[in-house]
Amino acid sequence: MDRYRIIEVKQSVFADNDAEAASLRAELRAQGTCLINLMSSPGSGKTTTLLRLLPLLQRTLRVGVMEADIDSDVDADTVSRTGAKVIQLHTGGMCHLDAAMTREGLRQLGAQGLDLVILENVGNLVCPAEFDTGAHLDLMILSVPEGHDKPLKYPLIFQRCSAMIVNKTDVLPYFDFDLDKVTQFARQRNPGIQIFPISAKTGEGVEALAAWICAQIDKEKEKKETRL
Amino acid sequence: MDRYRIIEVKQSVFADNDAEAASLRAELRAQGTCLINLMSSPGSGKTTTLLRLLPLLQRTLRVGVMEADIDSDVDADTVSRTGAKVIQLHTGGMCHLDAAMTREGLRQLGAQGLDLVILENVGNLVCPAEFDTGAHLDLMILSVPEGHDKPLKYPLIFQRCSAMIVNKTDVLPYFDFDLDKVTQFARQRNPGIQIFPISAKTGEGVEALAAWICAQIDKEKEKKETRL
Repeated sequence: MDRYRIIEVKQSVFADNDAEAASLRAELRAQGTCLINLMSSPGSGKTTTLLRLLPLLQRTLRVGVMEADIDSDVDADTVSRTGAKVIQLHTGGMCHLDAAMTREGLRQLGAQGLDLVILENVGNLVCPAEFDTGAHLDLMILSVPEGHDKPLKYPLIFQRCSAMIVNKTDVLPYFDFDLDKVTQFARQRNPGIQIFPISAKTGEGVEALAAWICAQIDKEKEKKETRL
Repeated sequence: MDRYRIIEVKQSVFADNDAEAASLRAELRAQGTCLINLMSSPGSGKTTTLLRLLPLLQRTLRVGVMEADIDSDVDADTVSRTGAKVIQLHTGGMCHLDAAMTREGLRQLGAQGLDLVILENVGNLVCPAEFDTGAHLDLMILSVPEGHDKPLKYPLIFQRCSAMIVNKTDVLPYFDFDLDKVTQFARQRNPGIQIFPISAKTGEGVEALAAWICAQIDKEKEKKETRL
């Protein structure tokens, strides 16, 4: 039996993605599932970060993962080896996921009964930032080799995300990357953005990130309980 | 006086970008200007590669550069210091350039009299590959930290490009990047793709790349002469 399935998702027919996203977010909140949308450039280490995070999150949470890609199932294959519930979404050339595509992915994954679903979006710093997926929490990874000037060039994604994970800190000695500068530039875009330097390769910093994510999920649950 | 200007370019009203691109390509060929479209993920080293390439190309060619970005003029500022004719194109949130935006950039740059214009596209492996800019030569950079699996995940850009520049070879010892595998995966997408391993940081491999680019421009000129 296959460890995961591959689903072809198509662009939404909903003219108003924002309304669809708000509706999905409310439904997920009602069923007690938190949705995280994880974004980055290609090769920033989304999957490797997930491989480090999943065992920490799975200590207390039932977690599912949706791997979005234009093609290939490299990532679902890798993540499924952790034992997490995983589905691969193929976007058929699309550069981002919208709320309807996310909803279809969640349906196929079977999100009922999960505390947390992490959507690994298509590797792209531009388009995914423009489309609300319905997530409760938007996170991004910027990796050291990409350079500290990225908040100047790709403003929207830094504005949208609650946290910036600075990955590949293990190679800091080999790159002209200034952590103080990237912090300053990111906060120019988004004064409240949380910043987590990590190395998904060595595991450094991942505990702190996992603890913060768990705290955000607890806050989401409180929102639900307050509303009941 | 400013060393470069910043131009706001807007998405095309042309329904048929392919026709507009073909027309632009023919006009440029007639005036003896070769257009190169350089694409990559954010932070792969497009600008640093240009800084290495420009002095080599400028030995025999009159070169202009168009720096496309969603925001900021970091790159135009950097490239203008080489003395090249440079213009910054702001896409206003757009994730790629189309042929009409490229045409407007060329007009504002003043491409008449130039042998070569290099368009540094928005950092994105997905959308720029879908839009013909009118270029005679599409090139892409994949940097070592991004990983050798990218041709599996972002097929179109590897299909479109005549050459893949593998940048940041100076950090090969610190990453699990397999040059043989990336060659194999890229050629699965595009059997004729040329592959140039370089380090824009140290300059290694850039002479061979510059020589190949000059040979391609000569071929373009021959096409023009044959048609006259």
